[in-house]
Parts: sequence; C-alpha cells; structure tokens
Amino acid sequence: MLPESQRGSLGVVLVSPRNPLNIGAAARAMANFGFQRLSVVAPFEPTWREARSAVGAPELLVNALESATLAEAVAGCTLVVGTGTLTYRKAEQRVVALPDLAPLVTRELACGGRVALVFGPEKHGLTREDLSYCHLLVEIPTDPQQPSMNLGQAVAVCLYELIRSSDSASESTPATPASSITSAASSGRLDLLAGVIEEAMQAAGYSPRGMQEANRHDLRLLLRRLSLSTHDTRRILGLFRRILWRLNRLGH
Amino acid sequence: MLPESQRGSLGVVLVSPRNPLNIGAAARAMANFGFQRLSVVAPFEPTWREARSAVGAPELLVNALESATLAEAVAGCTLVVGTGTLTYRKAEQRVVALPDLAPLVTRELACGGRVALVFGPEKHGLTREDLSYCHLLVEIPTDPQQPSMNLGQAVAVCLYELIRSSDSASESTPATPASSITSAASSGRLDLLAGVIEEAMQAAGYSPRGMQEANRHDLRLLLRRLSLSTHDTRRILGLFRRILWRLNRLGH
Repeated sequence: MLPESQRGSLGVVLVSPRNPLNIGAAARAMANFGFQRLSVVAPFEPTWREARSAVGAPELLVNALESATLAEAVAGCTLVVGTGTLTYRKAEQRVVALPDLAPLVTRELACGGRVALVFGPEKHGLTREDLSYCHLLVEIPTDPQQPSMNLGQAVAVCLYELIRSSDSASESTPATPASSITSAASSGRLDLLAGVIEEAMQAAGYSPRGMQEANRHDLRLLLRRLSLSTHDTRRILGLFRRILWRLNRLGH
Repeated sequence: MLPESQRGSLGVVLVSPRNPLNIGAAARAMANFGFQRLSVVAPFEPTWREARSAVGAPELLVNALESATLAEAVAGCTLVVGTGTLTYRKAEQRVVALPDLAPLVTRELACGGRVALVFGPEKHGLTREDLSYCHLLVEIPTDPQQPSMNLGQAVAVCLYELIRSSDSASESTPATPASSITSAASSGRLDLLAGVIEEAMQAAGYSPRGMQEANRHDLRLLLRRLSLSTHDTRRILGLFRRILWRLNRLGH
C-alpha cells in the first residue's frame, strides 16, 4: 500500500462531470482506497451542487477544489496522468497499461512529486486539448467490444490498481524530497515556461498567426515529454526571458 | 488475460440487489471486461424489471438468469467465491485478499471448473447463510475508515483483478477438462450429498431437532472445506445412501 503521507500527494481530477451520481461514486471510491484530494474542473453547476449536498457525501467531496481550467487544477502537479480509451484517437504522448502504472506513480510520489489522475466527462472523455496537459496516458485493459467504462467504476479500478501493487516499491524508496536538480517541474511551471517561449516565438516572427494554436499544443506536449526538472525549467525560462527581452528591444 | 473460452465459465451472481442503477453498473463492468454470465438471486421485482428494460442495457443483462435461491444459482459451480468486508463478522472459511484471487480462479477454470463470484445486497452484504455456500471469501483491501464499496464498483474492481493478472497462469495450463477423480464437485452435488447426510443424521437420532439448522450450516461449510472431487462425492453419497437405507429399515 502507498503510505498515507504519499496518498495525500495524489489527486483525482474530474473534468466537467455531468452526472451527480458519478461524482458521488468517484468520491466514494477515493474514500474506500484512502485518497483525499479531489478537484473538479468546470463542473455543470446544478450537478455539482447536487453531488456535494447529497446525504452522506464523503468529507472529501465537500472539501473538493473547483477550478475553471484543467491547467489550473494540475498546476502544482509534477506528473499528470490522463485516462481513457484510445479507440477513437491516437495518443500524442506515452501510453501505459493500467497494470504498469503503479511503479511510475510510486516513484514520483517517493521523490516528493505530486500526481494527478485526470478523468474526462462521461460522454466523450478528455479532449485533445485536455490530453496535452498530460505527461502520460493510462489505458484500462477493457474489451474492444465495450471499451468505455462508467466514470465511477473507472476511478475505482484505477485507484485499486495504485493501492494493490505499490507495496514493495513504496517501502524500498524513502520519501525524501528531491533537490531542484532532480525533482520534476510542476505543470504550472511548464505552463509559465511555455508562455515565455511562445512570446519569444512571436517576437521572433517564428510562424504565422494561424499556426499559433497548433504550436501551443505541440509545445505543451514537448515540454511534458522532456521530463524537465525544476532546475532545468528555471534555466530555460531564464534563457527565453533573456531572448524575449532582446527581441523586444531590437524590435523597437 | 483469461482466454475467452474460460471467461465464459465465470459467472457473477448478485444476491437481492435493490438498486437498478447498481445492477446496470455491474452488467456494464462485466461487458467492459469481457464476461457474459450474470445471475440474479431473489431480485426485488420492480428493480429488476427497471434494470433489464433500461435503454442501452447490455445483452448480458437481458439474458441474465434469475433464481430463487443462491444454492440454485451456484449449483453448477465448482468454486464459489463470496465478496464483502469482514468488519462486522468472522469468516467461517478461507479468506483471500483480492490481489491473490486470480491464480485460484485461473487454476479452477483451467481444470474445466466453473466459478461464481457472489455479491450481496447493497445494505448489508451477504448473510451468514449465503456465505455458507462459498468455498472462500475474497476481501477488497479497502480503507478501514470506509470499507464498504458501492456494488457496481466492487464488481468492476474484482473483474479487473481477474483479467489483469491471469496472463501467465492461464497460458501455462492447458484448459483440458479433468477426470472425475480430480475435478471438483459442483455446489449442487455437495448440496445433494449434504441432504442425504442430514437425513442419515436424523434417522440415526444424531442430534436434537433444535440443532438441525446449525448442523446444516456447519455441514455445508465442512463439505466445501474438504475440496471433494466429483468422484469422492459420488462415493460418499453412495455410502450415506446405504447407511440411510439401513437405518430406515431397522427403524421400522
């Protein structure tokens, strides 16, 4: 099992859930497996109110964080894991089968990182934009004839996997916070860096305006693929700020 | 993964489910993980009708078997696995943690046996009487502060465990039906045997009438603990039939 201190560093993020029963079921599964941090992104307000005020709603649901965007919800996380089936889309980042997820999560938590497990809306799952905030995708090995799981059940199965198999891994690695040279950069830091790089691109006339959205998307994925440490991120940020300053000065 | 032929020999049994949404969720999890055989014992009729006629109900729900008693539902099974938490009761048979269940199930299926995974009603789970039909109990490793899982989520987590880890075990053992000397006796055969033994007990004046119910319960557990083969069961049945005949003849 994950030690309790580490379970506190793993959060579940529900993006725009539509059904209050599913929100309640997700929260219950979290309580069943000893997790506490729930965030909800851009919920449908009546649904959200109903789920929170349900009789017997677990405390973690009452204390859940609400945010307008996924970027905001995962800003403090060093490993963002998207969930869903890949039947209708091609992954743009690493894909891991659920039975292989636990060691990655355990390692991240043992180094003092923060992990988010992100679930999309019931109907269509996470969008391509949502997925671009994810370092990796996890796939539940479902039957190809009926691949899509109910939200509450998907949360239960993923959390069960994390507590079932993290026995040995978590005990062998002490949970000492890593230095900034080795600790992974948070999602928020990566977004900050991406913003400065994008400004520099524009200032340098790197590509036509019509390409901005596509470039932003690819940059987000690239930065997550690189597994940058906090230290790396700070250095690259410094470099691009300098470049940007120079470009702006020259441009005037 | 369990080969498809073997998944057909594993059934899910829901005892007196009360909530149509839970029945639907259980059926959906079965479809997600490629299982087909669903039985429902003594369902609350309006609930059962509603669940079956729900829009988009999976085929396996429409084809589910209905029976009046658990004994009937598992009569053809050679390994009956009960589920639930043991917070409020003491187990009378072997208890296995869910992560350790798969090898047992895989072995049974590989020998040509039939397995039932039995889930109790939402409120209080399986009764002591229900549990006496189970060869073993499986426990999902939930948090002691919130041990009780939602029915649909419990089904999802158990089935996920069975498909996640049966990779190697199922491939190494060919699925040849065992001979009656080694193949496990079905639950129905054990009940038949128990009935004859009980008659013999009565005919022999073994214990006062007031003890009949308790004896029946203990006998059911005992026969399951012995892991009798079909062959054993037939021999013991022959023996007790002979004893019974003799007792009855002498009694007249």
